[in-house]
Amino acid sequence: MPSYTAPTKDLNFVLHDLLQISQSEIPGYADLEADFTSAIVEEAARLAEGVLAPLNQIGDQQGCRLENGVVYTPEGFKPAFEQIKQGGWNGLDLPEEFGGQNLPYVIGSAVGEIFVSSNMALNMYQGLTHGAISAILAHGSDEQKARFLPKMVSMDWTGTMNLTEPHCGTDLGLMRTKAEPQEDGSYRITGQKIFISAGDHDMAENVIHLVLAKAPGGGEGTRGISLFIVPKFLVGEEGSLGARNGVSVGNIEKKMGIHGNATCVMNYDGATGYLIGDLHKGMRAMFTMMNEARIGVGLQGYAQAVVAYENARAYALERLQGRDVTGVQNPDGPADPLIVHPDVRRMLMDQKSFVEGARAFTLWGASLIDRAHRMGDKDADGLISLLTPVIKGFLTDKGFEMCVQAQQVYGGHGYIEEWGMSQFARDARIAMIYEGANGVQALDLVGRKLAADGGKHVMAFFDLVKGFIKDNDGDERLDAFLKPLKAASKDLQAAGMFFMERGMKNPNDALAGSTDFLHLFGHVCLGLVWAQMARAAHAALDAGASDADFYHTKLATGRYYMARQLPATAMHLARIQSGAEPVMALQAEQF
Amino acid sequence: MPSYTAPTKDLNFVLHDLLQISQSEIPGYADLEADFTSAIVEEAARLAEGVLAPLNQIGDQQGCRLENGVVYTPEGFKPAFEQIKQGGWNGLDLPEEFGGQNLPYVIGSAVGEIFVSSNMALNMYQGLTHGAISAILAHGSDEQKARFLPKMVSMDWTGTMNLTEPHCGTDLGLMRTKAEPQEDGSYRITGQKIFISAGDHDMAENVIHLVLAKAPGGGEGTRGISLFIVPKFLVGEEGSLGARNGVSVGNIEKKMGIHGNATCVMNYDGATGYLIGDLHKGMRAMFTMMNEARIGVGLQGYAQAVVAYENARAYALERLQGRDVTGVQNPDGPADPLIVHPDVRRMLMDQKSFVEGARAFTLWGASLIDRAHRMGDKDADGLISLLTPVIKGFLTDKGFEMCVQAQQVYGGHGYIEEWGMSQFARDARIAMIYEGANGVQALDLVGRKLAADGGKHVMAFFDLVKGFIKDNDGDERLDAFLKPLKAASKDLQAAGMFFMERGMKNPNDALAGSTDFLHLFGHVCLGLVWAQMARAAHAALDAGASDADFYHTKLATGRYYMARQLPATAMHLARIQSGAEPVMALQAEQF
Repeated sequence: MPSYTAPTKDLNFVLHDLLQISQSEIPGYADLEADFTSAIVEEAARLAEGVLAPLNQIGDQQGCRLENGVVYTPEGFKPAFEQIKQGGWNGLDLPEEFGGQNLPYVIGSAVGEIFVSSNMALNMYQGLTHGAISAILAHGSDEQKARFLPKMVSMDWTGTMNLTEPHCGTDLGLMRTKAEPQEDGSYRITGQKIFISAGDHDMAENVIHLVLAKAPGGGEGTRGISLFIVPKFLVGEEGSLGARNGVSVGNIEKKMGIHGNATCVMNYDGATGYLIGDLHKGMRAMFTMMNEARIGVGLQGYAQAVVAYENARAYALERLQGRDVTGVQNPDGPADPLIVHPDVRRMLMDQKSFVEGARAFTLWGASLIDRAHRMGDKDADGLISLLTPVIKGFLTDKGFEMCVQAQQVYGGHGYIEEWGMSQFARDARIAMIYEGANGVQALDLVGRKLAADGGKHVMAFFDLVKGFIKDNDGDERLDAFLKPLKAASKDLQAAGMFFMERGMKNPNDALAGSTDFLHLFGHVCLGLVWAQMARAAHAALDAGASDADFYHTKLATGRYYMARQLPATAMHLARIQSGAEPVMALQAEQF
Repeated sequence: MPSYTAPTKDLNFVLHDLLQISQSEIPGYADLEADFTSAIVEEAARLAEGVLAPLNQIGDQQGCRLENGVVYTPEGFKPAFEQIKQGGWNGLDLPEEFGGQNLPYVIGSAVGEIFVSSNMALNMYQGLTHGAISAILAHGSDEQKARFLPKMVSMDWTGTMNLTEPHCGTDLGLMRTKAEPQEDGSYRITGQKIFISAGDHDMAENVIHLVLAKAPGGGEGTRGISLFIVPKFLVGEEGSLGARNGVSVGNIEKKMGIHGNATCVMNYDGATGYLIGDLHKGMRAMFTMMNEARIGVGLQGYAQAVVAYENARAYALERLQGRDVTGVQNPDGPADPLIVHPDVRRMLMDQKSFVEGARAFTLWGASLIDRAHRMGDKDADGLISLLTPVIKGFLTDKGFEMCVQAQQVYGGHGYIEEWGMSQFARDARIAMIYEGANGVQALDLVGRKLAADGGKHVMAFFDLVKGFIKDNDGDERLDAFLKPLKAASKDLQAAGMFFMERGMKNPNDALAGSTDFLHLFGHVCLGLVWAQMARAAHAALDAGASDADFYHTKLATGRYYMARQLPATAMHLARIQSGAEPVMALQAEQF
């Protein structure tokens, strides 16, 4: 069975050496001294390692089942969920007035990585609840907040998001679910939603569905869409549970992975729903919570790679197979450990350099969200809006790739379910698809975010990169970081220029390169955070850090990323510059 | 449920326009006129489309089960297997004296693609049998051939290959299975083998296991290994079935995919075995059949991508979602089909250009095997030995990647097992692992094949590329092919030079770049066959081919590969040239 140990040391490095959170001006950050965050992280680690991780494979094997309309989660999920509840983990970064602890999102994300790595399927019940809470916080009335949030923050009740229907996923304008206004101000919701993660289960008293539906008078397409709260059990004003609402589970999907999470077909048969936010402005309500949700999915992508890497590393250290060509390393054993082989090293270094870079990138992104939310910083908000599709798309594509590579380290055993490596890959696979498939992320990046506010935010990003390079110019110790970062950043600018010059005349010239652009951008982001981490590591070493080995390892890992991964940017640029012609040359019937 | 239609037209194109097989001097090729091969291919297509493909998902869902020592295959497998038998498909390219049809391997491979695309798990029972027959043909005594081959060629009996043990996969020198010589000349085989594909089942009267084991006196490591025939039921001289042998199935592995194939733990408890080939020369016997087996696995990699692509294409044509940004394409419908979106096109073109290139590359490789076997052509033998790890490693890595991409086209539905796209990815995943994990292929390529015979074969490959470019110099219609091919080939040569210069001093400088080299080589190979196909397409058009649209489509597909995929070679070269340092910098305990 695979194991999991939370990377508490590296989380500390990112929070304190790199982001230096306790010195930040962001409200609430001053409290985040290393002792305090370590205590939180270590407490989360204890729960994740001891309780959640051991259930991960059981969840995969048993899956969820629907019996007489009731959804049952795998053995052990309910008591484990109870421990997450009791620990108050869901409320960590939620407002105190509803029972939360009001800590910054950056801490919620650090803890989130740990929970997701240990058991992605189980953590999703919490993650969806968190998302629904954010939506109600942003758009609900005071009465709705008071009625629903306390029990949701405590996770006595969980939440869901209902967007997709059988015939419409990305294109929500095709939506058919209807909302009919009632005399008492509520709505009757009728329709079918699919792919509803954590749609129903046996771990909470109630499930609060957030449902997109079309109310009369809104016009065609997405304009007519509104957002509704539809509880499984109706809720009295004091939060008491009432009658069962007209919503039921039609089916649980059989999926490639995340079997422990009940992905439900939800049938709404005249269910009572309450409008949240403005009528016919449901899409806007959705969009405001999307940054956070998408960053959460990007986090899932790399968090699966974290645990997959840990196991691949352990296997490579233990499994004896073949000999080091440069000289026997384990003369007393029948063979050397796998880790002596350069190609096995390559796979491990790919994984290690990716997950550490992805962690830094994601937590930096989380700090931008804090800056935007807690300080009303519009520039931070614009920058994280720009980076969100990169975090979601790049980290999930690469996260899955790294899980596949970790599986590869196991050879034949990687293909056998018992060893658990297949599950990491299968679970990670969904993150490339949901919350906007990665092609949609690329479209969002190239089609909307790049040009948003006159291109101000992408310019700010380039300034950040240039500023870092300039500030550290002449520091030879950073040469192995600054040069590749500069080259990669130039490739990204050239791609942006190509889009500006050609995309105006033919949008397809930009869109045909959108996924390559997203990956190019992702590499530059990881190159930037790696360069920043290298500087932080040198600073720690200069200051006489006691654990010099940790920082030297960090530097070597970063050098690997720069030398081995950043050369991808030139390839992406070349593809982008080939334009739309090769991509669009065929007629549909010629495929 | 996914569907499958055999690409008969494209197979014809490769066999006749590209390889021009019926004009070849290779013995047996003159008979391979287009009418004749078409009849074979279409007959195989009928069986694959009508019988094998509809069972593919059933096989995945039901898997195999072990009850009271008996292995049961999924519903419908037995009658389908019977039809493969009755059609004589297994004997297509096997000697007439044992009941085969003695057709060239290139035809066997074309048919193989069709069977593998339609149902990989079911086809493996045949594939393993074919491999075991090849081993007996190459190394068995006349008596052994007479005793075992007729029933194996007819597939009344199937075959297996037994190499792996729990503690040893790649490193066979660690093998523990023992062979004790008996007075009658036979051996008693004792030990446990794992990961035995098609290890046992209910579709044949007997299973003929080829088992590697250590006989006394051979010395340490792989030197002591010999190869044995161990039948499930002992066989009389006239091929009659005797007593049950001391071999049993310990377990059926639960795997990520190919559930329809019984991957068995095989226990040998003093089973009677017959030495095949020379004592203590088992490894050599294994190696002589590895080219064919590895090409067969490379074929599996791209064959899964073929069927995955077909379904992704169909979905992209049918599924209505969003609108073409350059103008509505389906004004009467609620949305345009997915295929209007450039990023969906990109995914489809990636898949299409890969599978068509891979098909050409593989069938060219199969023709080299025919040339080597049927003409004793040592140069062809050397070239295919060089290309084998590329076919196996590159086509399975990319084949899996393309299956994942095909799944991505389906959005959320791609993750739901019912739609079948997950299965293609899960089934394709094994091809990267078995028959030598792809890292081992890269090691074989860089560590052995490159320098084999003084580097003669890699020079011959470069001459082939250069010759093609020179022969077609000045043909402007081929510019979009020749220029990228030239650049990619230069990258490959530079990588080879780097290995020669640096690898002598430090082998790790070569080994750290081995997988990148394999991929670089793969791109050059596909670039070469695409350039050749482009020439063939122009030739057909010049000759006034009736189906001009097919050839124009071929040219556009090839241009896509050259423009969008060949830029990867520079990235691989840059990684290779970064050498061993970034890869090997960490101590084992620093991971």
